[in-house]
This record gives sequence, structure tokens and C-alpha cells, in this order.
Amino acid sequence: MGKGELTRQAILERATALASRHGLEGVSIGQLAEELGLSKSGLFAHFGSKESLQVEILRFAAERFVENVVRPALAQPRGEPRVRAIFERWIAWDRSHSVPGGCLFVAAASELDDRPGPARDELVRLQRDWLDSIAIAFRSGITEGHFRADCDPEQFAYDLYAVALGLHHARRLLRDPAADARARASVEALLNAARRPARPAQVKAARRGAVRTRPSSSRPRRSA
Amino acid sequence: MGKGELTRQAILERATALASRHGLEGVSIGQLAEELGLSKSGLFAHFGSKESLQVEILRFAAERFVENVVRPALAQPRGEPRVRAIFERWIAWDRSHSVPGGCLFVAAASELDDRPGPARDELVRLQRDWLDSIAIAFRSGITEGHFRADCDPEQFAYDLYAVALGLHHARRLLRDPAADARARASVEALLNAARRPARPAQVKAARRGAVRTRPSSSRPRRSA
Repeated sequence: MGKGELTRQAILERATALASRHGLEGVSIGQLAEELGLSKSGLFAHFGSKESLQVEILRFAAERFVENVVRPALAQPRGEPRVRAIFERWIAWDRSHSVPGGCLFVAAASELDDRPGPARDELVRLQRDWLDSIAIAFRSGITEGHFRADCDPEQFAYDLYAVALGLHHARRLLRDPAADARARASVEALLNAARRPARPAQVKAARRGAVRTRPSSSRPRRSA
Repeated sequence: MGKGELTRQAILERATALASRHGLEGVSIGQLAEELGLSKSGLFAHFGSKESLQVEILRFAAERFVENVVRPALAQPRGEPRVRAIFERWIAWDRSHSVPGGCLFVAAASELDDRPGPARDELVRLQRDWLDSIAIAFRSGITEGHFRADCDPEQFAYDLYAVALGLHHARRLLRDPAADARARASVEALLNAARRPARPAQVKAARRGAVRTRPSSSRPRRSA
């Protein structure tokens, strides 16, 4: 990384933190320059315009999100363990130092939904990618036999997204101390609904202590 | 209603529409005055400060919400029909003329979560009241025998709230044409999970076409 690139990273780090607190519109190039002891013209040299700064902030935050949430979750075994890791990492992200004002993407969604332009386009692209990643992880759970074959991975991704939004709201606005426990209960319910129902023979065997009725979360299971 | 009260209502109507598009901070007394052909000092006479205008906007929107969502839903039979009406009215509200930029409360949540003060306090109070109303409606479904007695009404309220937030996001940011259908599927899954499981005897009878396995949605059911 050259000096220019280091400066750029430092600017984006600060800008992302500001945006998570005050929204993308709340990040002014003037204020950033002052806080970082840089000249305003130097900042413009890096980013050109407020709008392209906003796009860069979203991309920078997305890289962090991939590093902290997506990549470690994908390192987990396919299927249910991976889906659980996605959720746990995701809700930890909303509390991470990178985004002191909570998930930047949630704030940006509310800010940009009525504002066409490159920043909105970038946000939509990132959110769709994320929904796709969740659906793919869920689908691996069908292949592994953790979830029923007739489950709809896109619906699961939609539902998990809703749980994360609900949690963000309950934590940050309502300061609900039960928020995390409630969100986890919601996810357990989604996973329970997605699991293959135990067949009568399995249930009987399980009652005798012989067989698990649910697949172990870390072990692939032969399909029935 | 006197003339002063009519003016006040007209101001709040316009201010609420603006806030749903541009956020509460996006409503300036100067701009409002210009749009309504009133003097800025006249507007200050009505509301005193920008912050008290924000509180009044939230209260005004809440009154509309009660008129359009809460009251008609409460007119439905207790239990599942009432819970369904709450959801259907709620998602229609997000598209109503009163809030051209979508649900004002969602936008305000993201704006105010980091900003202590009377507007934030009012929003939290309103949101908690709404969660309580949902939980009460759900509880009536337990009394009526529509939902299992071991269901947690607060968890249901939390989950329904998350579905509404997810829908808002999918509609307004992602412009997902399947958003409404997905949200309805989420609610059906929540209601399915909350219903009493049919007992084996009932299932057999239902297969012979004799008995419903699920309670009719508009008729109270004797408790089992």
C-alpha cells in the first residue's frame, strides 16, 4: 500500500464511522478534512465529489462486512452451521467498532430509498448480493439434508433479513434488553420450520435413545 | 375546529408528508412556511421550535395510524382475524397517501436512534404502545383458542414488527416485486407456528372430511 492508498483508507475508515452515526448525507468533505488534518482540496483529489465519496463509503463498509461476517461464516461447515454463523456474525457486526452508530447499511437504506443515483444503486447491489449469499448458504443446508427440500431459500433469506432489521430496531431505538434473545428465538423458529420433520420411525427410535431426530449441526447427513 | 386548529392541521399534514420523504430533520419551518404561504413567525407561533414540531409530526402521524390501522383492525373479531387485519392494514399504511415516502416511523427510527431528546422519546413511546397492541391482539387469539397457550405474545409482536420492517426495506429500497407476497408468507408461517397442532383424532376426522383441522378464522373455537 502506497502512502496515497493509506491516506485513502484512513479517510474511508473515519467517513464510514461518521456515516454510521449521522447518515451518508451527514458526512461532509469539509468536516472530514478538518478531523483528519487534511486539506479540503486533497480530499476532493481522493474522491472527486460527495456522491462518489458516498459510493466509496458503501464499498469500504461492504469490504469490512465481507471480512467480518461473510468470510468467517463461509469457513463453517455447509448447511445449518453456516447459516447460524451468518446470523451470529451479522448481529455482532451491528455492534462492531467499524460502525459505532450501528449497521451503516440500515441507516443508508432509509436515507437513500427515495434518492436515485449511484449511491442508491451501489447499496441495492450490495444488499442483493447479501440476500443471494444467505440463500446460497441455506440451499447448502438442503443439499446436506439439514433442511427440507421444499423450503424456499429466497424466502429464508428474506426472513433472516427481516429478523436482522427487527433486531437493529429493537436494540438501537427501543434499547430493548431482550432484543438479542428475541432475535435468536426468531431464528430458531425459522430453522425449526425448515428442518425435516422427524419421521415416526425416527421419533420412536429417538425415544429409546437410539437415534438423533435432528441432524447434528456440524455433520452432513445422508438425504432421506 | 377553529381557524387556528384548521391551520395547524394543514401544517401538520404537509409536514408529515415531507418528513416521510426527507426525514424529520428534512422538514424546515422556513420551507413549510413558503409551501403553505404562511409567515415563518406564524409557524413558530404554532410550534415554538423545530424539535416541538418534530414531536407534533410524530403525534399527528400516530393519530392517522390509529385511524387507519389500529381502529379498523380492532373492529375485527378477536384473535386471528384481528391479528391478520393488523398486518394487512399496517402494510397498506406504508403505501398510503399520508406517508408518500413510506412509513414515517421507520424513517424516524433510523434518524433518531442516536439522537436523544423529546422526539426520540415520543417515537419510542409510540413504538412500544404499538408492540403492546399487537401482543394484546395476539393474546386474544390464545383466549379464543386460535393460538397455542404456550405462545409468547411479545415474541409474536416482535416477529410481526420484523416482518413489517423487512417489507418496508424490500419494497422501498430493493423495489422487490415479490416483497408483499414474501411478507405474507412470513406471516402465514408465524401464524401456522402459533396454531394449536391438530391432534391425531382430528386429523383422521379431517381426512374423512368431517372436521376442520384448523379453526375457521372468523369463528371462536372452544378451547381443547
